[in-house]
Amino acid sequence: MNEWQIYLSGEIHTDWREQIDAGVREAGLPAVLSSPVTDHAASDDCGVRILGEETQPFWHDHKGAKINAIRTRTLIEQADVVVVRFGDKYRQWNAAFDAGYAAALGKPIITLHDPSLTHALKEVDAAALAVAEHPDQVVEILRYVIETR
Amino acid sequence: MNEWQIYLSGEIHTDWREQIDAGVREAGLPAVLSSPVTDHAASDDCGVRILGEETQPFWHDHKGAKINAIRTRTLIEQADVVVVRFGDKYRQWNAAFDAGYAAALGKPIITLHDPSLTHALKEVDAAALAVAEHPDQVVEILRYVIETR
Amino acid sequence: MNEWQIYLSGEIHTDWREQIDAGVREAGLPAVLSSPVTDHAASDDCGVRILGEETQPFWHDHKGAKINAIRTRTLIEQADVVVVRFGDKYRQWNAAFDAGYAAALGKPIITLHDPSLTHALKEVDAAALAVAEHPDQVVEILRYVIETR
Amino acid sequence: MNEWQIYLSGEIHTDWREQIDAGVREAGLPAVLSSPVTDHAASDDCGVRILGEETQPFWHDHKGAKINAIRTRTLIEQADVVVVRFGDKYRQWNAAFDAGYAAALGKPIITLHDPSLTHALKEVDAAALAVAEHPDQVVEILRYVIETR
Amino acid sequence: MNEWQIYLSGEIHTDWREQIDAGVREAGLPAVLSSPVTDHAASDDCGVRILGEETQPFWHDHKGAKINAIRTRTLIEQADVVVVRFGDKYRQWNAAFDAGYAAALGKPIITLHDPSLTHALKEVDAAALAVAEHPDQVVEILRYVIETR
Amino acid sequence: MNEWQIYLSGEIHTDWREQIDAGVREAGLPAVLSSPVTDHAASDDCGVRILGEETQPFWHDHKGAKINAIRTRTLIEQADVVVVRFGDKYRQWNAAFDAGYAAALGKPIITLHDPSLTHALKEVDAAALAVAEHPDQVVEILRYVIETR
Amino acid sequence: MNEWQIYLSGEIHTDWREQIDAGVREAGLPAVLSSPVTDHAASDDCGVRILGEETQPFWHDHKGAKINAIRTRTLIEQADVVVVRFGDKYRQWNAAFDAGYAAALGKPIITLHDPSLTHALKEVDAAALAVAEHPDQVVEILRYVIETR
Amino acid sequence: MNEWQIYLSGEIHTDWREQIDAGVREAGLPAVLSSPVTDHAASDDCGVRILGEETQPFWHDHKGAKINAIRTRTLIEQADVVVVRFGDKYRQWNAAFDAGYAAALGKPIITLHDPSLTHALKEVDAAALAVAEHPDQVVEILRYVIETR
Repeated sequence: MNEWQIYLSGEIHTDWREQIDAGVREAGLPAVLSSPVTDHAASDDCGVRILGEETQPFWHDHKGAKINAIRTRTLIEQADVVVVRFGDKYRQWNAAFDAGYAAALGKPIITLHDPSLTHALKEVDAAALAVAEHPDQVVEILRYVIETR
Repeated sequence: MNEWQIYLSGEIHTDWREQIDAGVREAGLPAVLSSPVTDHAASDDCGVRILGEETQPFWHDHKGAKINAIRTRTLIEQADVVVVRFGDKYRQWNAAFDAGYAAALGKPIITLHDPSLTHALKEVDAAALAVAEHPDQVVEILRYVIETR
Repeated sequence: MNEWQIYLSGEIHTDWREQIDAGVREAGLPAVLSSPVTDHAASDDCGVRILGEETQPFWHDHKGAKINAIRTRTLIEQADVVVVRFGDKYRQWNAAFDAGYAAALGKPIITLHDPSLTHALKEVDAAALAVAEHPDQVVEILRYVIETR
Repeated sequence: MNEWQIYLSGEIHTDWREQIDAGVREAGLPAVLSSPVTDHAASDDCGVRILGEETQPFWHDHKGAKINAIRTRTLIEQADVVVVRFGDKYRQWNAAFDAGYAAALGKPIITLHDPSLTHALKEVDAAALAVAEHPDQVVEILRYVIETR
Repeated sequence: MNEWQIYLSGEIHTDWREQIDAGVREAGLPAVLSSPVTDHAASDDCGVRILGEETQPFWHDHKGAKINAIRTRTLIEQADVVVVRFGDKYRQWNAAFDAGYAAALGKPIITLHDPSLTHALKEVDAAALAVAEHPDQVVEILRYVIETR
Repeated sequence: MNEWQIYLSGEIHTDWREQIDAGVREAGLPAVLSSPVTDHAASDDCGVRILGEETQPFWHDHKGAKINAIRTRTLIEQADVVVVRFGDKYRQWNAAFDAGYAAALGKPIITLHDPSLTHALKEVDAAALAVAEHPDQVVEILRYVIETR
Repeated sequence: MNEWQIYLSGEIHTDWREQIDAGVREAGLPAVLSSPVTDHAASDDCGVRILGEETQPFWHDHKGAKINAIRTRTLIEQADVVVVRFGDKYRQWNAAFDAGYAAALGKPIITLHDPSLTHALKEVDAAALAVAEHPDQVVEILRYVIETR
Repeated sequence: MNEWQIYLSGEIHTDWREQIDAGVREAGLPAVLSSPVTDHAASDDCGVRILGEETQPFWHDHKGAKINAIRTRTLIEQADVVVVRFGDKYRQWNAAFDAGYAAALGKPIITLHDPSLTHALKEVDAAALAVAEHPDQVVEILRYVIETR
């Protein structure tokens, strides 16, 4: 059995990635999990830190967002499954952007969010093959589709 | 000169589409503008209206969102340029989803939003070829790229 | 508004295509409907009629099925929307094949079948953006996605 | 020589997969066989088991079929050769759907079925590079194309 | 009904193209026929005539073949159906090359040749959806797939 | 015969486009010529003119170059043939970039430059189907490939 | 350095594959060579041997050619470089077909043939990145492009 | 974590590749660096050395450039990230060509050049996800996107 590449997109303020990681390891699944840079400050400032300061906030953000895109687009394109998590804070447009990007590439998408977000996320959920509420459901889905049990 | 197909994605609560439409017509540009269904209630309820009621809100939304996707994906795929508008209200995840979808297809993207949203939209703006604040800037860009003036 | 290309795949023993055609014309939709060859005998025998007799039934069928594929694959690839109808008779594997073909190409799919077939068609319906029971629902969907009303 | 990825789609009520597996192992072929979930009940119920009960049979099926699609589409896209088996029972629309999906991706297809199904499967067979009647013929084909003997 | 684009590749020493053209016009089919440059001398010498003489025969041929490729590849890529004719003279490797090119693009192929060439053309015929012996059979196929009669 | 779309990339300081345009019109070819914005100042400043001033030259250039890309990439992707002109002044990296872009899309490329640039342009010429020295040779090639005379 | 996949298509009556294989091994190149089935009788008869006799020569050839296509297309699609050899005997349309197939996929092609075939192969050579006369030149090219020496 | 494939295109007269290589190794990144042939004379003469002399400089260059393209296009297509370096000497059209080729394939591009080249490279930089001035910045970017630190 080959390894499955699973990309975990979205919210960076709760430990949902750690929960999925623990579950995947406990189940012994042949799955490689990957993520964007989840250190908020490092992610925001990577552009100016590496390539030099900017006086305008727009270009500060722009330089960083593009460097982050080198990682995120590469990993989405290599992924077999893309999990997209939406939390209850912030606008998280990057998560929805990733979902749209993955959808256009034909990647299987699993969304993960509280039912209270159902109406706001209906277009994203419509492109998903599964809509989960809890990280352990994502682990269960991965176990089922990878190991058929 | 062929007609350019321009898809206008995003916010449905202000008249930005009408402003772009008026500007495009005033400039006499060979551009065909298209949009999602912008009647909020019609869009939300199209699934159950046509295909039958649902008892669960999730499936109510799901049926509608999928029918809307028939329109939106077809128009994005036919578009030469995709304009994505973000307003100051609501979560607008569908707009960011459309932007990601368009980006993965290699469509030129113009985002349209207030500078106050710059930080939250940095990943979306990073995928755009132009970031505008006002509808008349979008018209100016279209005039320039279509008619070179 | 450009014309939408709609391909009507599947069952050839009831008048569902005529009903959709009548509905589309009554609604004045800018939609071009296309279909496989729906004359059963002509479709079965086109290979040997044009290219010469075969002594083996397998090759009789094979020659005809391939000539039909020139039409069906071309029309599916040109389609903006693919409608796939399943009736209650015959195995209709060609309809399911068309649905799979359209799904892999990323075409929006509308399935049309009686609820009694839901369980047997669950994998096909899972790839559809709408699951209709009656031809007039297909017309309603087309009117909604093409003309937004 | 690299390993060949072989996906075995279709009928789950006879031991044709086991026969091919035994033959491939006996021949020592560098081939990795994969399949959908073949436990009928597990496959039907995976959606509600993992993601929660549904009151409507349609959505019960829908949730399960989509989770199964995460597995089946991923494996078809990774496959070098897709074998599709049709038995004499049930409608097996998912098998024909998989064949269409594989055909649109340009995957070499081997169909496996009794000659009594030839006429009903003519469109599927027309897209196949080989039409076998017995599992050992599939093994022979794999041995020939992989090891040239 | 849209116009079908039909590319006629291969042999340039008999009047098979004229026969197909006459048949298509007589049948009133909405088909646009296109061909490579069929004037042998003009085709061989186009490179050096337009771009300057060459002292080496290899480069004489090379310049011409590449200019001809501007036409042939463009037309094959635009074609809905590619007809490839093999005669009994010359090596006609360009015809087989065109067939391979069309096959990789997923274009429906009709081959046209005498049965005496069957064994030599088996790999090309294996990629075709129809194998005809006479130009009027090609016309019949086009009439059937375009107009379903 | 359909119209051919010809994109004219590269040098903007001589009248080579006008010469090709005159030749194409004189020959009555069904060809639509398109170009980037050739007004040097307008092209350089379009970004800041439409979207607002920048204090840094890098971002001044960046905004303009991206807006120009909306036009150039769209036209290259729609082109049947891409002509790329290199003059003897300036670095013209955008011309070579366009050639690479067109090559990766599989577009037939005609380069147009003085023989003195042959060595420096060898990688670009290696991707071209014709290497011309004078605009009238480009017209001749277009006449030959479009009208076969 | 990753391994390069090299597919050797064409003539099966001389030892050119063995020469390239010996050269590649002597040079210690990280290259995996693959070929079609080169046993002429086995290749011709594989279809009827595995899948059952045919009374018509056309179908005898057809069944075999399609099984061979499972191997050849898979290997061409996996190849980094495709070498196509033309000898002085037989029509070798399959070699030219493979070259066209590889060209449409954008694979780098090296042709290998005697200069006496230059004129007949000009369209195929026009799609090649190198035209060699001797197997040791192919080895030299592989050594240069893989190991840069 | 999988290995990342990084292609280093462009200038061959300074030691920027060695600097990146040293930095990548010092950081212990799972990255495989690859490059075109950087021996100027070997690169220029590979065509005539392997395939025979040419009397015309154009064909001398052409043969060599095409053989080099076997390497460069293969490596660009396999790359996860393409770094393109522009120096202050020579025209370096091959570097801009590679950037255009990579852009059309959707590869993340990092350009590396002195700020004095900003205006001349604006179209290339507009297609890049990062614009660096020093090799150590490229190493920093790779470390960040690969190892998120």
